[in-house]
Amino acid sequence: MYLGSWLSRLSRGLSRPIGKITQPVWGSLSRSLSLGAQRIPEFSSFVARTNTCGELRSSHLGQEVTLCGWIQYRRQNTFLVLRDCHGLVQIIIPQDESAASVKKILCEAPLESVVKVTGTVISRPPGQENLKMPTGEIEIRVKTAELLNACKKLPFEIKDFMKKTEALRLQYRYLDLRSFQMQYNLRLRSQIVMRMREYLCNLHGFVDVETPTLFKRTPGGAKEFLVPSREPGKFYSLPQSPQQFKQLLMVGGLDRYFQVARCYRDEGSRPDRQPEFTQIDIEMSFVDQTGIQRLIEGLLQYSWPDDKDPVEIPFPSMTFAEALATYGTDKPDIRFGMKIVDISDVFRNTEIRFLQDALAKPQGTVKAICVPEGAYLRKQDIVFIRDFATHHFSQEVLPVFLNAKRNWSSPFAKFIMEEERLELTRLMEIQEEDMVLLTAGEHEKACSLLGKLRLQCADLLEMRGVVLRDPALFSFLWVVDFPLFVTKEESPTELESAHHPFTAPNPSDIHLLYTEPEKVRGQHYDLVLNGSEIGGGSIRIHDAQLQRYILATLLKEDVKLLSHLLQALDYGAPPHGGIALGLDRLLCLVTGAPSIRDVIAFPKSYRGHDLMSSAPDSVPPEELKPYHIQVTWPADSEEENAAATPSENLSS
Amino acid sequence: MYLGSWLSRLSRGLSRPIGKITQPVWGSLSRSLSLGAQRIPEFSSFVARTNTCGELRSSHLGQEVTLCGWIQYRRQNTFLVLRDCHGLVQIIIPQDESAASVKKILCEAPLESVVKVTGTVISRPPGQENLKMPTGEIEIRVKTAELLNACKKLPFEIKDFMKKTEALRLQYRYLDLRSFQMQYNLRLRSQIVMRMREYLCNLHGFVDVETPTLFKRTPGGAKEFLVPSREPGKFYSLPQSPQQFKQLLMVGGLDRYFQVARCYRDEGSRPDRQPEFTQIDIEMSFVDQTGIQRLIEGLLQYSWPDDKDPVEIPFPSMTFAEALATYGTDKPDIRFGMKIVDISDVFRNTEIRFLQDALAKPQGTVKAICVPEGAYLRKQDIVFIRDFATHHFSQEVLPVFLNAKRNWSSPFAKFIMEEERLELTRLMEIQEEDMVLLTAGEHEKACSLLGKLRLQCADLLEMRGVVLRDPALFSFLWVVDFPLFVTKEESPTELESAHHPFTAPNPSDIHLLYTEPEKVRGQHYDLVLNGSEIGGGSIRIHDAQLQRYILATLLKEDVKLLSHLLQALDYGAPPHGGIALGLDRLLCLVTGAPSIRDVIAFPKSYRGHDLMSSAPDSVPPEELKPYHIQVTWPADSEEENAAATPSENLSS
Repeated sequence: MYLGSWLSRLSRGLSRPIGKITQPVWGSLSRSLSLGAQRIPEFSSFVARTNTCGELRSSHLGQEVTLCGWIQYRRQNTFLVLRDCHGLVQIIIPQDESAASVKKILCEAPLESVVKVTGTVISRPPGQENLKMPTGEIEIRVKTAELLNACKKLPFEIKDFMKKTEALRLQYRYLDLRSFQMQYNLRLRSQIVMRMREYLCNLHGFVDVETPTLFKRTPGGAKEFLVPSREPGKFYSLPQSPQQFKQLLMVGGLDRYFQVARCYRDEGSRPDRQPEFTQIDIEMSFVDQTGIQRLIEGLLQYSWPDDKDPVEIPFPSMTFAEALATYGTDKPDIRFGMKIVDISDVFRNTEIRFLQDALAKPQGTVKAICVPEGAYLRKQDIVFIRDFATHHFSQEVLPVFLNAKRNWSSPFAKFIMEEERLELTRLMEIQEEDMVLLTAGEHEKACSLLGKLRLQCADLLEMRGVVLRDPALFSFLWVVDFPLFVTKEESPTELESAHHPFTAPNPSDIHLLYTEPEKVRGQHYDLVLNGSEIGGGSIRIHDAQLQRYILATLLKEDVKLLSHLLQALDYGAPPHGGIALGLDRLLCLVTGAPSIRDVIAFPKSYRGHDLMSSAPDSVPPEELKPYHIQVTWPADSEEENAAATPSENLSS
Repeated sequence: MYLGSWLSRLSRGLSRPIGKITQPVWGSLSRSLSLGAQRIPEFSSFVARTNTCGELRSSHLGQEVTLCGWIQYRRQNTFLVLRDCHGLVQIIIPQDESAASVKKILCEAPLESVVKVTGTVISRPPGQENLKMPTGEIEIRVKTAELLNACKKLPFEIKDFMKKTEALRLQYRYLDLRSFQMQYNLRLRSQIVMRMREYLCNLHGFVDVETPTLFKRTPGGAKEFLVPSREPGKFYSLPQSPQQFKQLLMVGGLDRYFQVARCYRDEGSRPDRQPEFTQIDIEMSFVDQTGIQRLIEGLLQYSWPDDKDPVEIPFPSMTFAEALATYGTDKPDIRFGMKIVDISDVFRNTEIRFLQDALAKPQGTVKAICVPEGAYLRKQDIVFIRDFATHHFSQEVLPVFLNAKRNWSSPFAKFIMEEERLELTRLMEIQEEDMVLLTAGEHEKACSLLGKLRLQCADLLEMRGVVLRDPALFSFLWVVDFPLFVTKEESPTELESAHHPFTAPNPSDIHLLYTEPEKVRGQHYDLVLNGSEIGGGSIRIHDAQLQRYILATLLKEDVKLLSHLLQALDYGAPPHGGIALGLDRLLCLVTGAPSIRDVIAFPKSYRGHDLMSSAPDSVPPEELKPYHIQVTWPADSEEENAAATPSENLSS
């Protein structure tokens, strides 16, 4: 039956499976989201209804209720299903003559129209209960009905949204928001942030301080949006984070600051980035790295959704060097193995030419990962992997299969000597059906390549039915001991900050600042969840002289733009440090959503457009006048390019 | 003694009396701010200290504590006072030889340097307790000390900040934030907002939804900041409020939305306005005006600071017409009387010419207010009042004094007949020493003038020592039944929205929309506190056809800019309404601060400048290029004007 299957899909949270949620259901949405032992909010205070549709149970039998909601479904003019933000309930359409006007309203209103009904909660006839529906034991015998707003013909059936492009969903976002999944995502986001606030404010005495978003551009702030002011040639800048303000608040003695901060970054078109995003921004005085880490572990444990397994603390920690050597990345997904192993020593006497060549170089290494059950990959997968290595890293990759019965099945086997084979098998704990991916080259490059291939093999294996990464598992990891500086790609003799120029050096490395600054480790820490960076922070420099030396001498920055901060450090700045968590990314991982756009109420498209209202938009020249700016129109050819691209609206 | 007086001033919250707070004191700041019966936060978790300076009491005697803070004061190298965000504590500097290094650190560090000390909490010697200091019964016998950061010579002594200009305070905001008053204001703000969130989220099921600030310009959005995008000629707009989004969320079935929303308004230079400000933004489905009012009353009662008298609910309510007729304004301060009285009938047969003239006109009235104890005003005050009426309203005002012994002391007395005098005295309940201010003219104009004079008389009387407005009294008032439209000043045949074009008409006036729209009342409500508007909202139009008629036919707006909203209303928009509270203004009134800048961590100056970092700032032309804009430099004379005004920095 149509209704049954639709309801059961809906009640399993699968109406539009953009995420991987299976637990919460429409009818229990509010309850599953309500905070642990705390009282359940009054969802019907101050309004026309007495109850929400989704909350009605057998315990309400006999009660007269007033409900407001949308007509989700109607069957043969005998009953309909009413939906509100808390779930679905079945309404019996009265058939007797005296209720003709009620029947007319309920039968004639188009689907998705808004109605108010009053009636009595009654039991469903025996055998007609719907156990998959949280309100499936009861139904409503209606006395009065009022059409609050009729719905015109929709651009699509809401339940078919799963078949629509994301562009269409974004264009009609207000309809998309009616889906179970978007309701769940936004309500969960609100709840998690609320619990974070309780933890920070009520349990640990943090002060929620709002900092300006109309600010001055920062050194190297090329990704900052500009806001013209009414003063000719003067612009505000929308900051990428409240970094300067949070440090100044510490100088101002605020002691413990947090903010759910709106941040801005103009990166042009980038998939899965948003021009405005939200971070949980935290700063503390008199704290060290461990203090911040324990604070954040407690924060996540406290605010973690009740419908997930509790977060275990403390989180494991790994140095940057170890993360790179073992996982080929600074944000390892530690839910699965496939660790990188240095097998240079195994191949000191190899006959394989490209390994020979690599090992002959001073920094040369041979590295490998063992892909469990890699034998399930197809030939096209292997081709894809090798092509990827060639295109992106100009590296050779050797897939080596071990088959216990047939011994080495790889064509390269003949060049691998028996003792090499044995040593490799021992070192990498190779099993039947496993595949080894082997490459050679300089340490960092070889690790980076294998780090990428590790993730691609996981993707490919999961496509082939071998599950490596449990979506219900949340593996947090601290990555620490990052280098304070990296050399600039375009100019290797110059340094730039690995994190940002306010990060304090590791105290035991301070002497190296004046001799070998590239060897200094920073007091910087990243928080990684399932292979995504969800936060990062550092202990800051509180010594003005050191900050000046790093900015001016080592980084060659224009310190004038930061003179206020340098001055502030001189006037009794306390030692301080902090962190910022990327809220959108965190929620995306928690809900299992495929994109951060699914945890944001009104996201921009990957090109930075609001597809609902068509922002950004043209502005008449007279409205630019007060800001003393005018548009520099590009030459014709560029203009055509620009004009030729707004196809995103409906076809992407 | 210097220390004693400084401490006692500080402990009474009077170190820089920008507000009128007398209750909270440094040492009990955290406790007085902690939430009623809820647990006190752990202020020393995760950090180097064991306790805060301000929390130590006799109950801590004998405990070894580690404290971090700023050196507030030092006396004869024998003791110093250490300050942190929670208060002050006295530290005994050890004098014995073995502690020479500790003594050296504590004696040589400049004031406002940051130190960490460990020591034991001991009793002060009998007779040396300081009862005005919350930690005045104890002191710390120090064992170790560490200089965490030395303070360079400050641009001023922090305790002298009260003598500095506000521009200097804003330039060194990070030092200004160390003052008791700013700490109190920001911490109270955080606490009030947290309690509002608890009320909305945890008690009433509201969903905190973040809405975009990079959006499309709205019709008539002349006060919106523009943000150039990388597409030539295309701009985002920073919205003045999330109005459209909150309505779209209701269409999306979110049911109960709130947000502590950052809003933007570019009004150029205006005193006591900020280009970015914060509002508590609320929207509900299936609600009426009363529902929103009860919600907000509960919200304010729940979040009201514990150190103030509780808020009494429900708040009184007054129609716009009554507010205008009685108080001459739509935001009456009802803490005091001086109501406007229509005394036209008293003067139907007057011999006073300008009253005669006024009453001869069809809309002519005579109005008066009785200024209690107005006889205490000076002659210059009366001159000021009359000049004000002439300059701003081109109106004549008659001050009439009643002196029981000398009868009418006013020179106009001779023209006022005995029966007029008696009737006036009876109607206005005039007492000895009162003054009547009398004017004539059209109803609205006469009321507006007397409304202004009412406030100015209150100011003048308070300068003369007659207190009319109790600063500890918080008088909330709903003002309702506003007209839906007003005629445009520049073109009286055209209408504009009194509130905004989404406000629903009063149901009983709907028929007038098509005949006499200027007579339609809107379902709009303002919340007024002590004469300031702190909030406003409305029940919205949920009918697309009605919304189109009002926008296109009555207001002649370009509906294209709002097509997404009109479309949304067609697809099953629920009836809905909401409100927004101005958080900065509310906090300003609650703390008694003289300016909203005192409840904002990093405010802009009245010219929209950040005086600390010098924002807005120049941007090199190459950074404008990606945004396809260039600066239109004004002609020389204008430029000079612009260049001649940055004197604000230090001299205003």
